[in-house]
Amino acid sequence: MVQATALERNEDGISAALGILKQQFGERFSTGAAIREQHAHTTTWIINQPPDGVVFAHSAQEVSDIVKICAAHQVPIIPFGAGTSLEGHVNAPAGGISIDLSQMDKVLEVNAGDLDCRVQPGVTRMALNTYLRDQGLFFPIDPGADASIGGMTATRASGTNAVRYGTMKDNVLSVQAVMANGEIIRTSSRARKSSAGYDLTRLMVGSEGTLGIITEVTLRLQGIPEATSAASCSFPSVEAACETVMAVIQYGLPVARIELLDTLVVKAVNSYSKLSLPETPLLLLEFHGTDAGVTEQTEIFGALAEDFGGTGYQATTSAEERTKLWQARHDAYWAMLALRQGAKAVATDVCVPISKLAEAVVAANEKADELGLIAPVVGHAGDGNFHASVLVDMDDADEVARAENFVSWLNERAIALGGTCTGEHGIGQGKRPYLEKELGGAVDVMAAIKKALDPDDILNPGKILS
Amino acid sequence: MVQATALERNEDGISAALGILKQQFGERFSTGAAIREQHAHTTTWIINQPPDGVVFAHSAQEVSDIVKICAAHQVPIIPFGAGTSLEGHVNAPAGGISIDLSQMDKVLEVNAGDLDCRVQPGVTRMALNTYLRDQGLFFPIDPGADASIGGMTATRASGTNAVRYGTMKDNVLSVQAVMANGEIIRTSSRARKSSAGYDLTRLMVGSEGTLGIITEVTLRLQGIPEATSAASCSFPSVEAACETVMAVIQYGLPVARIELLDTLVVKAVNSYSKLSLPETPLLLLEFHGTDAGVTEQTEIFGALAEDFGGTGYQATTSAEERTKLWQARHDAYWAMLALRQGAKAVATDVCVPISKLAEAVVAANEKADELGLIAPVVGHAGDGNFHASVLVDMDDADEVARAENFVSWLNERAIALGGTCTGEHGIGQGKRPYLEKELGGAVDVMAAIKKALDPDDILNPGKILS
Repeated sequence: MVQATALERNEDGISAALGILKQQFGERFSTGAAIREQHAHTTTWIINQPPDGVVFAHSAQEVSDIVKICAAHQVPIIPFGAGTSLEGHVNAPAGGISIDLSQMDKVLEVNAGDLDCRVQPGVTRMALNTYLRDQGLFFPIDPGADASIGGMTATRASGTNAVRYGTMKDNVLSVQAVMANGEIIRTSSRARKSSAGYDLTRLMVGSEGTLGIITEVTLRLQGIPEATSAASCSFPSVEAACETVMAVIQYGLPVARIELLDTLVVKAVNSYSKLSLPETPLLLLEFHGTDAGVTEQTEIFGALAEDFGGTGYQATTSAEERTKLWQARHDAYWAMLALRQGAKAVATDVCVPISKLAEAVVAANEKADELGLIAPVVGHAGDGNFHASVLVDMDDADEVARAENFVSWLNERAIALGGTCTGEHGIGQGKRPYLEKELGGAVDVMAAIKKALDPDDILNPGKILS
Repeated sequence: MVQATALERNEDGISAALGILKQQFGERFSTGAAIREQHAHTTTWIINQPPDGVVFAHSAQEVSDIVKICAAHQVPIIPFGAGTSLEGHVNAPAGGISIDLSQMDKVLEVNAGDLDCRVQPGVTRMALNTYLRDQGLFFPIDPGADASIGGMTATRASGTNAVRYGTMKDNVLSVQAVMANGEIIRTSSRARKSSAGYDLTRLMVGSEGTLGIITEVTLRLQGIPEATSAASCSFPSVEAACETVMAVIQYGLPVARIELLDTLVVKAVNSYSKLSLPETPLLLLEFHGTDAGVTEQTEIFGALAEDFGGTGYQATTSAEERTKLWQARHDAYWAMLALRQGAKAVATDVCVPISKLAEAVVAANEKADELGLIAPVVGHAGDGNFHASVLVDMDDADEVARAENFVSWLNERAIALGGTCTGEHGIGQGKRPYLEKELGGAVDVMAAIKKALDPDDILNPGKILS
């Protein structure tokens, strides 16, 4: 286990806060070892750093009360949603209190006429979509995991259909947040656009719990499209697949999803999901629109793919077949893990300008080979975002070192290509070494904002900034 | 003239800075009265507050040098692009130096494969689109005026086709900016999405020159659509037109433009642009897509409009007819002014949730009548954003007072309906009284950020925050 150092603990403050919280929250406050470990990082190779206590909040006012108690004693506060983040965001390197927001799981308001809704942060994206379905609406952001809306907001999440619908940055209209002094603010009105002062909404989106605790989110919604079709197309090489993606984006074809699976992932998926896809690089697609529009998009894609040697192109509007195809994509993580029993997957999520995608993916494949690593690639190709997941035997120190080398090389390569070390997972603990390499002096500006809004560094310390 | 108070001047500092700038910039520095007045507010009823000197910068490094000189002497710096802002953004209430960026007007890079470009801040949107046309690309944001990209970024501008393409918030990938200490930062990589730390790009977009001076902008571009069609449709009432807009948005019809003109504006436009539109509320539309897609959109709109009593619906793909229709829309401001010789137009730009649009527009019409004011309404209806422009005889103190009453009432009404006092013009000087009414404690957070990034308040003082 790697990549997380402990920070100095304020033992007296923590002890005082634990006492007060126990008294005020009774059964809803826990210091049990198991629950504390569950509330720290569990998903990747980053070590588990449990908080000292976990409190289950039921309202913004309660969150404010907790923050005020912790602020008075200078105790760290770590917000927790579904625990699906990948870069150590929920770890407690200096100890402190985890605020579990999962019980704040109400959909507060749906304004169908305005295509928006207001939810508590603990609502998960699947729960929200189940809630919305009867009204013909859906919330499009799909990071794979059934993450909470609060957590998705905090990490600026995206996923498979960001190419069409954008990321959380584009789909959060406003947030309510508790700031480091306990004050509850709302960042924006419910208008679809605004020029009213600094864009605090976007500042909170992606702030990873370090500037405030998100207690409500107002989201843009979409109407469920009249027609949906899914398709797959095989390519002779990763370059050919990426060049097709570039052509699609340049054409302006409004694909809802365009996902790249490299040969290794296709093999993994065939084996895991009992499919018989040709074992070459593959694009998985989804089209949304009117019946005629989807038919036209499907045809245009076919013509573009043919130019780059695409074969076996098949589209389907059958809900059952679509589900099967996308289930395979969503199971790709497990399919990859099954390639190597007992290995841990090390997540990466660089994002490069589309024109550099082929170069970046090919280089990642080659670098993994050179280092003797297994690193299958899936990508949200339409955004230039891809995941090379290194499958590592954590008992092999040399292999762990090679994996670290790979991750570091990949992040720096993406930055050199004009891209970012993180397209959607966030900085957390794991990517801190790369933020300054990517943005230089802009990190000082971030630090100044953090210092201004959280002078005692009690909100999720040790994340984003060093 | 109203709505701008002078702030305290630092005479010694200003005098020192003037001397140094004269020495360093020679011919490119001016203290002439005419040029100073041109570099202050000229577009609305807000008074003209000239800077003490104007310097024409040619590079980010020069901007940095100027900022350092002004910082050393605690002298205000006001960035200036095309001077088309409407809320006093370029005024110098405490005196100081206007940095004119209009000569930084180069398109630095176009990445056609990535649909992005990098430009200097003085490039105007029309110049950019002329530059891009041969490559089959365009930049969609159209605020009406031929504003500079830097200014549009700083005010989070939008305009007629934000309903399809978003606002500057959605179309700026990254900015280079000079901060209050003279440091030059870049806020983001060129990747289409990123979760790398705080969203400084969105923080700079809409910061109105109060957090940094924008010296480069990386923009998303669009491919020029295969087909474009324009259309107009008359309605029996403003409610009917607004209900049609709501139906269009709920349907998910991807209209590129959907503009509302109330009866008064239609009359003005008929007279000014020699048209013969039926003198009832009107929607002007534009559809972008494939040939088949545009045909389908045109038909769907027709069916929706019929449900609400739409008549005289006509669509055209003729470039000449489209230009004529949109020229009339763009001339609406002049057409309205011609309704009343010698009057000044007082701009407003509230934005409400779409479901409240009909209610808000009708109430604005009624309120204007009640106050004995002429206030024609045009609106970017698909966003819930509309302009009621009061035509005021500035020599009539009572009428000016009634106009102020109207503006104040309208802003507060929009806020009460869940909307914002400014959909696209920004806060500047004119809207400062409404920001706190709209966002309450969030304004304290904005002030803390301002204080952290510009502790001496030298960057465009007296704007956004009081």
